Amino acid sequence: MTTAARANLRVGVDIGGSKIAVLVVDPEDRVCVRRVAPAASADPDAAISQIAAAIRDAVGEAGATLDDVRAIGLGVPGRVDTASGDVTFAVNLGWHHLPLGRRLAEELGVRCVVENDVRAAAVGLHRDRLASGERPIDDLVFLGIGTGISAGVILDGRLHRGVRGLAGEIGHVVLDRDGAACACGLRGCFETIAAGAGIARAAREAVEAARDGDPTSLADLDDPTAEDVFRAAEAGDRAAIRIVDRAADAIARMVHELVLAYDVELVVIGGGISRAGAPLLERVQAGLDRIGAPSPFAAELLAETDVRLVGPDHDIGTRGAIALLGAAVEGVVAREAVG
Amino acid sequence: MTTAARANLRVGVDIGGSKIAVLVVDPEDRVCVRRVAPAASADPDAAISQIAAAIRDAVGEAGATLDDVRAIGLGVPGRVDTASGDVTFAVNLGWHHLPLGRRLAEELGVRCVVENDVRAAAVGLHRDRLASGERPIDDLVFLGIGTGISAGVILDGRLHRGVRGLAGEIGHVVLDRDGAACACGLRGCFETIAAGAGIARAAREAVEAARDGDPTSLADLDDPTAEDVFRAAEAGDRAAIRIVDRAADAIARMVHELVLAYDVELVVIGGGISRAGAPLLERVQAGLDRIGAPSPFAAELLAETDVRLVGPDHDIGTRGAIALLGAAVEGVVAREAVG
Repeated sequence: MTTAARANLRVGVDIGGSKIAVLVVDPEDRVCVRRVAPAASADPDAAISQIAAAIRDAVGEAGATLDDVRAIGLGVPGRVDTASGDVTFAVNLGWHHLPLGRRLAEELGVRCVVENDVRAAAVGLHRDRLASGERPIDDLVFLGIGTGISAGVILDGRLHRGVRGLAGEIGHVVLDRDGAACACGLRGCFETIAAGAGIARAAREAVEAARDGDPTSLADLDDPTAEDVFRAAEAGDRAAIRIVDRAADAIARMVHELVLAYDVELVVIGGGISRAGAPLLERVQAGLDRIGAPSPFAAELLAETDVRLVGPDHDIGTRGAIALLGAAVEGVVAREAVG
Repeated sequence: MTTAARANLRVGVDIGGSKIAVLVVDPEDRVCVRRVAPAASADPDAAISQIAAAIRDAVGEAGATLDDVRAIGLGVPGRVDTASGDVTFAVNLGWHHLPLGRRLAEELGVRCVVENDVRAAAVGLHRDRLASGERPIDDLVFLGIGTGISAGVILDGRLHRGVRGLAGEIGHVVLDRDGAACACGLRGCFETIAAGAGIARAAREAVEAARDGDPTSLADLDDPTAEDVFRAAEAGDRAAIRIVDRAADAIARMVHELVLAYDVELVVIGGGISRAGAPLLERVQAGLDRIGAPSPFAAELLAETDVRLVGPDHDIGTRGAIALLGAAVEGVVAREAVG
C-alpha cells in the first residue's frame, strides 16, 4: 500500500521572483506535499542546484524518491521555448538562455516540462475545472498581475501561445499615452498603472506630493510597496485610494478589452496583486459597472463574464505546472499501472 | 467537356450594405462569373428573392444551372448563428432573426453556409494563402473597417469565434474616453474614430468649425462622406488630413493591441476604408513607426508583422464566402468526381 500510494507522483514547481513553490501530487491528484523554498539565484548553476534540492526535499517529505516521480512541470516568469524547455529570458530572475528543462532532467533523471508561469496557471485553471466535474470552461483568461502583467489564454480548450509565443503580452497595451514611462520604452502601458512596480512608483509620487501639502500615510514608510499601498487604501488613506482606484479602473478596462477580443467567459486575476483580495475585486467590479452603465452591449457582455480573483493560498502556480504534464503523461501512467 | 467544366460549381455571396456581390468558381477555384446586384432589401421576403435572383443570374451567366452548384457560401455584415444559418441581427441591412440559410436552401435547392462577412474574409485569406502554395500563415487578423469595425481572427489555422460568437468585436475598445458618443453607449470607441460613420461625423464637425474661421473644402460638399474626407486629405485639405491622421493613428494603435493580444503575423485591413488605398496605409505605417520608435520590443514585434490593405478590386468578400464551404464539401466533390 505505501509503495503503491507513493508511485507515479507528479511534481509542480512555481519559480517566482520571491520564492520557489513545490507541490507533489499522487495519481489521483491528491496533494502529498506542499513546500516553499527561497527564491532561485540569478546564477544558472546555483539556480539549478536550488531548484533540484527543493524538488528532492519535497519528494523526500512525501516519503518517496525520485524513482517514484513520473514527471515534473515547471512554471517560470519569462519567455520559454516549450519544445526544448529552455528559458529564453526571465528578467525578474536574471536568467538569459538557461536550458532549465534539460539541466534539471539530467540532474534528477526525471522528465521535465517548462512553460511560462502565467500560461501554466491558465492551463491549470482549465484542467482543474475539467477535473472538478463542473461544467467545463473552454475559453478563459488568467490575468497575471505581479511585477509585470501578461495573460494566459485558453481558447476552445487549447492554450493560445501565438506565432512568436507572445500572445497575451497585454501589459504593454497603452492605456494612457501621457502616462508614466514603461520599461518597454512606451508611455502609459497597462503595466505602468496596475502592476506592482507601477503602483510603487505612484506611491513614491504620492510621497513627493505629500511634501507639497497633500498628506498620505505612505510618507511614513520607507520605500512603500504595492502591498503597502493596498493596505493604506483599506485604512482610508486618500492618496492610496486614488492609486488603487486607478489600477482597478485600468484592470476593468483591460478585462473589457480582453472580453471583446477573445470572447472568453471567465477571467481570473492572479499574481501578486491577488493578495489585495476582496477590496480590490470590488473596485474592479465597480470599474466594470461604470463601463456597462451607459452601454447595454457592454453591460450584457460583462454580466455574462465571470471575473474572479485568485484566493490567497491557492496553489494556482504549482497546479498549473502539474497541468502542463497533461493527458499524455497520465495516459502512460494509466497504461503502466495496468501492467 | 462543357458539362464537366460546369459541374461542381461553388458560389460565394457577399451581402453588403450597398451591394450584393456574387462569385462563381469551378472545382479548380477558377473564376467563372463575377457579378454585382443592388443592395438587399430590409424586408425579409424581398431580400430572399433578390439574393436568390442574383445567384440564379450569376449561375446562368456561367452557362450552368443550380443543379451544377455544389454549395453556396454567404457572408453577412451582422451576427450569425452558424449552426442554423440564421442571421440574428444585421443592423445595416435592417434584418432581425432572418433564417437566411434555410430560406435560400429551400428556394434554390442547394446547401447554403452563412457566416459573418468579416469572419468569412479571414477564412478566405487563410485558405487563399494555403491554395497559393506560399508559406501558410495560420495566425492572421482581417480588420474590417466599414460603417462599423470588427476583426475576423484565425489562430492556429482555425477561425476563432469565441463563446458567444463575439470574438473580434474590437470596434468597441475605448481609445479616447472623452471622445464622441458611440452607438453602443460608450464614448471614444475605436469605431467613433476610424469607421465610416465616425469619419463622416468628424467631417460635419470640421464643417461647423469652418464657420468659425477654420476653412475646409469639406464645407463645399453636401453631407461629406468618409470617401470625401480621404479625397480632400489627398488634395491637401488640412482639416481632412487631421481627421484621416486621427483615424490612421487609431488603426495603428489597434494593430499594436491586436498583435500583443493574439500574436498574429499578418493583419489585413479591408472593408470600405480600403478604398482610401496606399495613402491610408502609409499613414497607418507612420503610426506604427511612432509606436515602435521609443520601444525596441514594440518595434521588433511590429516589424515582424505584415500589415496590408486589401486591393480595390479584390474578391475578398466573395472568396471568403466560398472558403466557408471548406474542406468538407470539397472532400465530397473529390470523392464523387472519382466515382
